Amino acid sequence: MLNRVRSAVAHLVSSSGTSSQRSKSPDLPKAISPPPGALETPKSPGTKSGNEIPAPQKTAETPVSFSRPTFLQLSPGGLRRADDHVGRAVQSPPDTGRRLPWSTGYAEVINAGKSRHNEDQACCEVVYVESRRSITGVSREPSHNQGFSFYYWGLFDGHAGGGAAEMASRLLHRHIREQLKDLVEILQDPLPPPLCLPSTPGTPGVSSPSQLVSPQSWSPQKEVTHDSLVVGAIENAFQLMDEQMARERRGHLVEGGCCALVVVYLLGKMYVANAGDSRAIIVRNGEIIPMSREFTPETERQRLQLLGFLKPELLGSEFTHLEFPRRVQPKELGQRMLYRDQNMTGWAYKKIELEDLRFPLVCGEGKKARVMATIGVTRGLGDHNLKVCSSTLPIKPFLSCFPEVRVYDLTQYEHCPDDVLVLGTDGLWDVTNDSEVAATVDRVLSTYEPNDPSRYTALAQALVLGARGIPRDRGWRLPNNKLGSGDDISVFVIPLGGPGSSYS
Amino acid sequence: MLNRVRSAVAHLVSSSGTSSQRSKSPDLPKAISPPPGALETPKSPGTKSGNEIPAPQKTAETPVSFSRPTFLQLSPGGLRRADDHVGRAVQSPPDTGRRLPWSTGYAEVINAGKSRHNEDQACCEVVYVESRRSITGVSREPSHNQGFSFYYWGLFDGHAGGGAAEMASRLLHRHIREQLKDLVEILQDPLPPPLCLPSTPGTPGVSSPSQLVSPQSWSPQKEVTHDSLVVGAIENAFQLMDEQMARERRGHLVEGGCCALVVVYLLGKMYVANAGDSRAIIVRNGEIIPMSREFTPETERQRLQLLGFLKPELLGSEFTHLEFPRRVQPKELGQRMLYRDQNMTGWAYKKIELEDLRFPLVCGEGKKARVMATIGVTRGLGDHNLKVCSSTLPIKPFLSCFPEVRVYDLTQYEHCPDDVLVLGTDGLWDVTNDSEVAATVDRVLSTYEPNDPSRYTALAQALVLGARGIPRDRGWRLPNNKLGSGDDISVFVIPLGGPGSSYS
Repeated sequence: MLNRVRSAVAHLVSSSGTSSQRSKSPDLPKAISPPPGALETPKSPGTKSGNEIPAPQKTAETPVSFSRPTFLQLSPGGLRRADDHVGRAVQSPPDTGRRLPWSTGYAEVINAGKSRHNEDQACCEVVYVESRRSITGVSREPSHNQGFSFYYWGLFDGHAGGGAAEMASRLLHRHIREQLKDLVEILQDPLPPPLCLPSTPGTPGVSSPSQLVSPQSWSPQKEVTHDSLVVGAIENAFQLMDEQMARERRGHLVEGGCCALVVVYLLGKMYVANAGDSRAIIVRNGEIIPMSREFTPETERQRLQLLGFLKPELLGSEFTHLEFPRRVQPKELGQRMLYRDQNMTGWAYKKIELEDLRFPLVCGEGKKARVMATIGVTRGLGDHNLKVCSSTLPIKPFLSCFPEVRVYDLTQYEHCPDDVLVLGTDGLWDVTNDSEVAATVDRVLSTYEPNDPSRYTALAQALVLGARGIPRDRGWRLPNNKLGSGDDISVFVIPLGGPGSSYS
Repeated sequence: MLNRVRSAVAHLVSSSGTSSQRSKSPDLPKAISPPPGALETPKSPGTKSGNEIPAPQKTAETPVSFSRPTFLQLSPGGLRRADDHVGRAVQSPPDTGRRLPWSTGYAEVINAGKSRHNEDQACCEVVYVESRRSITGVSREPSHNQGFSFYYWGLFDGHAGGGAAEMASRLLHRHIREQLKDLVEILQDPLPPPLCLPSTPGTPGVSSPSQLVSPQSWSPQKEVTHDSLVVGAIENAFQLMDEQMARERRGHLVEGGCCALVVVYLLGKMYVANAGDSRAIIVRNGEIIPMSREFTPETERQRLQLLGFLKPELLGSEFTHLEFPRRVQPKELGQRMLYRDQNMTGWAYKKIELEDLRFPLVCGEGKKARVMATIGVTRGLGDHNLKVCSSTLPIKPFLSCFPEVRVYDLTQYEHCPDDVLVLGTDGLWDVTNDSEVAATVDRVLSTYEPNDPSRYTALAQALVLGARGIPRDRGWRLPNNKLGSGDDISVFVIPLGGPGSSYS
């Protein structure tokens, strides 16, 4: 994430931490405390995960180092090459090793020098969810005893340090698994989800949905879909991940923050959850279907301004919640300038008063838009210690850890092997638009046999290379001679109708 | 607006008024105080409006009565027929009188008995805007001396009384005119709007845009479009209208509240502003283009919940900001129920605690959705005295007076005489969907000559009749035997390429 946090690193070690604005939902299971020294590498694809949510090791003896996704299977020499800003070699899982689940393609490249290490992280797993009820050992119908697996892909674009992205890549899918444990029987039952359950999970005597409290038909009630339970589980998992980062922020490993773009495949549907400025699109028969939107100071301006208006103490005496098209000058006091507030999408003139000389909460355009002159992305995980430059004012209250989740039903369409879901960090999208990605999808996949499992990795590599460009004229240049992306770039390509889709 | 405010009327006379949550923008001109007794009927189409914004008469001597739009030119007998719930005769401007501006078609019908009078109101005007600068008499270039006219259509759907709708139908376009007065030169200047003006409007010495403070090019700045100034003017006019209602709410005429759907045609563009649950669509060559969206407790759930979460004092001890799919029962304490908060679109289970037994801030579905168990629409004008049933808790802080404004550029498409913009109150849309309206557009207009000016009124009548139905089986029935709308129904049909469009 290039230049997304201005001068933030210097403030990250501040000990006057700010607690998250959001309250924890009262009845959500806590992330289980990690056993000492339980630093765990990501599981190999297809393995069954355990129950604990381990936290990164926090002892001072452990030197902080950088890492790349385990599925890249990098040797020490390979790790050095992946960390080389000069060569910027594109990394993918080796042809010879175990392939990623679902025949997923993946490629990444480090930035051109904007940060010491690649601050993107990635995760691709098959996660088994055991019912919380079956854990208790209470007797039940065999059909309700079975858990299920979900496929999982995550891209995490770190800023102001790589710690948050690394932690999220290791743990977010486990938070999702924890949230799904209570839903194993409910999601597999064709009946609508029960609105009320009689007691806490795992209580003896709660053995099948038929014993659940029946909805009171005399009272008006909403029907809640199975899909919306999965969406709720993912939303709460994001929040719990963020809260775990808050608890452990004094550890060396949880530095900075990260955007999170996550896909969960469960029972025939893809759930695409995005918090930040990464992007997911489906390219299906040449058509582009957006599966996410970006959360930036521009797209979330009114939410940010409303918060500043309702809670002016969050602005200190340094910021105004009003937006102006440029910085107001002291000599312009009494003149009239264009502005807009939290309710407006248009602009109007107002007489400039003393308070308007404060710095605007939201300012700048495009990639230069900032909240409190500091951060260019408004959703994600971490950033608990982030302060306004030269100030103790916390920025976290304006950031949301909640993703927007879009659901795509794989069963509603007959997909061909060239239909793909593409996930990319902003390093890809800063220099490549949706149509260019779709054109690359068509160009690359048509040169491979439909059943060649390497075609999706080749496509991911082509997308990363196309965004990075080649070194020329004192920079990385694209074929049209424009500047390539100097940011970290990471791409997943998930085939919707290829060989991988039969895994489900 | 049928059943949109439950038990609200009884609380409207409460004297413990609540002030609006929104602060007034500091530099906006005040609505001029009305001269005593300046109750003014709407101007005839095409007349030039004066400068004052009169308020309805407030003296106790004036009996509160009902009214219909002046453009209907109703005789006392016609007024009685328009007020008859049994016959429900469809009303339109007479063929013999002066036609509505822009060859606009209009029709309305009273409700089937849910309120004493028709609580919808309508306005259709051509409004002349004189530059505020030229009012001062300061010498200037002749080309900058000229004002402009805008075409204006407004539909106002009242609830809990007809006062707010009637006041808005008389005054909102004048608030818009006031806001535009400062923009006369700027909007007619092809250069981008100046970001800063040197002083207050009408100040001598400020005679032409060339003397305006030039933007400081060294500082990053946003470009602001002419369109967005008109949008801002309309947004602020809605706010000032609402504030005027707040000031005058103790008067007999400002009872209840109203949805407002307004169209301004200015310099080649249609600005469609909606606050409430009326709807506007364009039917162009058979294609449907939505020009508004509805604002209800369901569509604005997260905004409402966020406000309740950030300002819990607005909920009293009676409401919870959490949503549940049905009412929680005291005997369910300790059990787990589905819920969602201001951050969630999905659902999750939570353990029921004492606070969850409070009534949900947002509950119900579809037309039965309510804020604080009272009101089914979340944007509009008025409602300053609205309280929760059997409580002093004000509801106004949760309501927004701000419209969403969509812009349609008439010059970007060659319109034919069958292309229309249809505005309707929810009485139309409750029983008629967009496709059915488009089919009626096609069916009715094809039976008239393209240059027959009565075709748009015939279409408006057909739409109203189609939603009202005919009296049969103890009710108003549609041809498919479903219930017709028992609500007030009002429809404008604005031709986009007909004879009227040449007026501009």
